[in-house]
Amino acid sequence: MTDMERLPSFNGEFAPIAYRDGGIDLLDQTKLPGQVQMLRITQVSGVAEAIRHMRVRGAPAIGITAAYGLVLAADNGDEIIPAAGSLRATRPTAVNLTWAIERMLAIFRGHKDKPLLDLRAALLTEAHRIHAEDIGANRCMGRHGAELLPPGATVLTICNTGALATGGYGTAYGVLRAAHEQGRLELVYACETRPFLQGARLTAWELKKDEIPFRLIVDSAAAYIMSAGKIDAVLAGADRIAQNGDSANKIGTYCLGVLAHHHGIPLYVVAPRSTIDTTIASGEEIPIEERPGQEITAPFGINIAPADTPTWNPAFDVTPASLIAAIVTETGVHRPPYRLTGKER
Amino acid sequence: MTDMERLPSFNGEFAPIAYRDGGIDLLDQTKLPGQVQMLRITQVSGVAEAIRHMRVRGAPAIGITAAYGLVLAADNGDEIIPAAGSLRATRPTAVNLTWAIERMLAIFRGHKDKPLLDLRAALLTEAHRIHAEDIGANRCMGRHGAELLPPGATVLTICNTGALATGGYGTAYGVLRAAHEQGRLELVYACETRPFLQGARLTAWELKKDEIPFRLIVDSAAAYIMSAGKIDAVLAGADRIAQNGDSANKIGTYCLGVLAHHHGIPLYVVAPRSTIDTTIASGEEIPIEERPGQEITAPFGINIAPADTPTWNPAFDVTPASLIAAIVTETGVHRPPYRLTGKER
Repeated sequence: MTDMERLPSFNGEFAPIAYRDGGIDLLDQTKLPGQVQMLRITQVSGVAEAIRHMRVRGAPAIGITAAYGLVLAADNGDEIIPAAGSLRATRPTAVNLTWAIERMLAIFRGHKDKPLLDLRAALLTEAHRIHAEDIGANRCMGRHGAELLPPGATVLTICNTGALATGGYGTAYGVLRAAHEQGRLELVYACETRPFLQGARLTAWELKKDEIPFRLIVDSAAAYIMSAGKIDAVLAGADRIAQNGDSANKIGTYCLGVLAHHHGIPLYVVAPRSTIDTTIASGEEIPIEERPGQEITAPFGINIAPADTPTWNPAFDVTPASLIAAIVTETGVHRPPYRLTGKER
Repeated sequence: MTDMERLPSFNGEFAPIAYRDGGIDLLDQTKLPGQVQMLRITQVSGVAEAIRHMRVRGAPAIGITAAYGLVLAADNGDEIIPAAGSLRATRPTAVNLTWAIERMLAIFRGHKDKPLLDLRAALLTEAHRIHAEDIGANRCMGRHGAELLPPGATVLTICNTGALATGGYGTAYGVLRAAHEQGRLELVYACETRPFLQGARLTAWELKKDEIPFRLIVDSAAAYIMSAGKIDAVLAGADRIAQNGDSANKIGTYCLGVLAHHHGIPLYVVAPRSTIDTTIASGEEIPIEERPGQEITAPFGINIAPADTPTWNPAFDVTPASLIAAIVTETGVHRPPYRLTGKER
């Protein structure tokens, strides 16, 4: 088998994670694009490590991974509640993680007095359901979002929102795929997305795999390409969306929101309803993860800055709803003023 | 001697270039911050190579280097006019390069019928004068610019505009030094400045050397830090300024201009009058250099993107005068509407 043929899949869709025979097959995204390396994870601690170190990342993908992680907990006879706590504590910003864990805990509570085999089967069924629903939602978002783009569209995007960030197919990237399948996408400008380079490493890898025409740019060139009149729309995913539409996403998304607004270009946020946090009214309540400075000063282990250079490395920023032309979920295209409702748990 | 003690200087000021005994001592900036490596250049072709490959960069610094390059041409008995042409062709955007070469050619024309030794002495005197004037202009800009900053200022900057980018002291960075010397600078946020990482590699190196407090950030975090209300001013250099104030500078400067405007933060452009191109009315006439895609896809020779990833890599962008709160030159602080006059050649 070639590297590509060994990639995990789910319901026939390339997926960055799959549950198989008491373990999780996980594509180590920190090794892409240089190596297509599969991890085999059989312990909850290994799942937590993989999420914390971004071997799997993207709000929907880490939710699904955590759900499978709780199946592993049942497989291994671990206590479910502490296992859930350890997974929830890995990363603070993406609400999908909490949302998926809550769904699994509801199953646990409904089955905890039943035989372990029944509990385990119910947890696996629920995890598969979360995974399948995510792919289904992504395909719906792809169709809804593609209708927002003009024929021959040139689109700017940030980070990775593809199959790698989700259960499969992608969110904002799914819109690109759908538009490409419909023949209405001319070109994608992909921001490299410092510091973790999800654009250069992961989105470029998916765009090449899917044979979608693109150019990779440094993040700060987004303003120039917008001013040149070449961008029809900006597409971004989200890690947590407040009721009022304020959206947390990869650092730099707010930057693109300001730039798009200045140039009269629509910014569309594309995310499943599981990303909507209906417990918060606005983006001010979203916790923003700060990550180690080495992501900036030593990418790939190469020191690019002087020793002991102080940094500020927030992993996310919040784009206010006022800068978002529409939010695309599986139920359709939402326009401002936003009054968003989340997905049932 | 330590590495730092071997650094070249001019008129007592640390300088990235110095002429000595028929050759140029040049600090190879592509090796910083890991190695402090001096090059000894004795041929015009070596000067052209150093400018083209950004071993020396920064609009004023490449002008000064080219001036010394023409002294080498005289030292070696090369034809001056073709030598000047080869140096001028190295990089298209910074007008200081053309400006310095034109000054040297005026000396050549005035001395071409005189003995070679006289010509050579006159060229060296003129190159030293260009270098000395640059440092003097930078110190003036530092004083003028520092007055624009409030006490306890926190300032955002991009690229490297320090001693390394000039004959010594720096332009926008010179303002930071002057404000720091006056005790009115609290903190600098330095954008890493992809793709060539002049902020991470060079500005961080100078800030540490000068013991100025700072934090290194990825370029796309500029919007978030501005929205947090932490930035009092944005300071940038320039590679070419049109009569109307439109300013070409490192890619991402226009991005900062839009962001600063959105957040009500002043953007100050700091550059000597040799950077003003009075032959052009607006920024539309400024040629923008596009550099090899490997700067994006393979920094430090490490492949961060899939093989054959297509890129778009403009080295500069143009910030319209409408986004610039003031332009600081050695003659003072210029406010809009700009009607700029250049420095005599």
